Amino acid sequence: MDDPVLLTGASGHVGTAILDELAGDYEWRCLDRDPPTDPDDYPGEFVVANVTDEDAIRDAVEGCGAVVHLAGDPRKTAPWDSVLANNIDGTQNVLSAAIDAGVERVVFASSNHAVKHYETERKPDLYRTHDDFRLDGSELPRPGNLYGVSKASGELLGRYYHDEHDLSFVAVRIGNLTKDHPPKDYERGQAMWLSYRDCAHLFDCCLTADYDYEIVYGISDNDRKYYSLENAKEVLGYEPLDNSADWNEE
Amino acid sequence: MDDPVLLTGASGHVGTAILDELAGDYEWRCLDRDPPTDPDDYPGEFVVANVTDEDAIRDAVEGCGAVVHLAGDPRKTAPWDSVLANNIDGTQNVLSAAIDAGVERVVFASSNHAVKHYETERKPDLYRTHDDFRLDGSELPRPGNLYGVSKASGELLGRYYHDEHDLSFVAVRIGNLTKDHPPKDYERGQAMWLSYRDCAHLFDCCLTADYDYEIVYGISDNDRKYYSLENAKEVLGYEPLDNSADWNEE
Repeated sequence: MDDPVLLTGASGHVGTAILDELAGDYEWRCLDRDPPTDPDDYPGEFVVANVTDEDAIRDAVEGCGAVVHLAGDPRKTAPWDSVLANNIDGTQNVLSAAIDAGVERVVFASSNHAVKHYETERKPDLYRTHDDFRLDGSELPRPGNLYGVSKASGELLGRYYHDEHDLSFVAVRIGNLTKDHPPKDYERGQAMWLSYRDCAHLFDCCLTADYDYEIVYGISDNDRKYYSLENAKEVLGYEPLDNSADWNEE
Repeated sequence: MDDPVLLTGASGHVGTAILDELAGDYEWRCLDRDPPTDPDDYPGEFVVANVTDEDAIRDAVEGCGAVVHLAGDPRKTAPWDSVLANNIDGTQNVLSAAIDAGVERVVFASSNHAVKHYETERKPDLYRTHDDFRLDGSELPRPGNLYGVSKASGELLGRYYHDEHDLSFVAVRIGNLTKDHPPKDYERGQAMWLSYRDCAHLFDCCLTADYDYEIVYGISDNDRKYYSLENAKEVLGYEPLDNSADWNEE
């Protein structure tokens, strides 16, 4: 990837994990709705803009070869009006601008909340090692909240822009990202733990592999997992290094 | 169904087909954003309101046992801002109000455009009788336009309200509805033709059958079909009477 990569939501949790490892590997153009506390913490240009601002997004994406689109209201309890504007309309703004600017790939931060209601009849067994139930990305979404609806809608938008405009699009249904140890006393979080370095590596794969339209799960290789990693491994070359079981915490 | 049934988009094409056959079978509460040319054309109360008007929708749904939600921008070329407001936000308004009012079932007019890009590599063969490719509703959407994205997003909202609040929800991916003969010189339209009487019968089934969350295709039993009718027949008891092939038009 020689052209700049636009990173929306650069100051968030996932953006931080990505930049921690990959700051020097791409020509980043960071974007966030809030100005950075210290611009020196970010590589390259920093654009302050909201993804709901169509004109600002069109300017920001100009000249980029790829977009990593993380921006949005990240709260699982976010009210509808916020996810409608920030997550659904925001993603449409980003994708539409990307197509018009000739961007070839978009990596989209989707969420485990897009499929959370698969857990309803199966918990807590599916959080445990002995249970071999797996979601693999081919299943219809079952959002657990309106935030999850908005993320699944972003996947739909990506599907449309892939089919209509040949955009390479991958949706990463991110699990439970933590910087150091996996969540404690939280089986679900341990099942879908994503370590910082696995997160960065996965997004690195998303920026380099060849694919058309993909939905993958973004978790470490946890013994407790109920999300399949096959697609991420086969299509993207993802090779996770971490496993919440290695932390010996139940 | 003893309680009133709210019919949004009552003056549209699908609403007309439903009321043509079923005006006397339910206690309808018709709703449309435009006042009727002649209120006597509609059974029961007629509410003039836009589905984007949250308060008006909350009032309209009060006391209803079911909602048939047809309202929205029906243009396959509708711009994003319109489908975002009228179709996505409008459907959320209807579903949220329905839940709060204790409505037990919502029948949602989805569209063939939610899956149109499955046709891209397969046309025109899949429009022809010899081709046995079938979509059955279990597949991930592949919208053909932003209108299709909005309809697939409505299906997601329905899934959430079903899983979270036990709402019975069926999405009918409506094909090509015409009042008299099937579309002429249009293979795709003949493949997904829905006659007026089959349309009314299908929505009647949706208002009486027992189901949880379903996605069905709304077409007549056309020889040319590439949408499966199995789900509609098995779950809803749909028994279509028409077939575009009977019109002997290629």
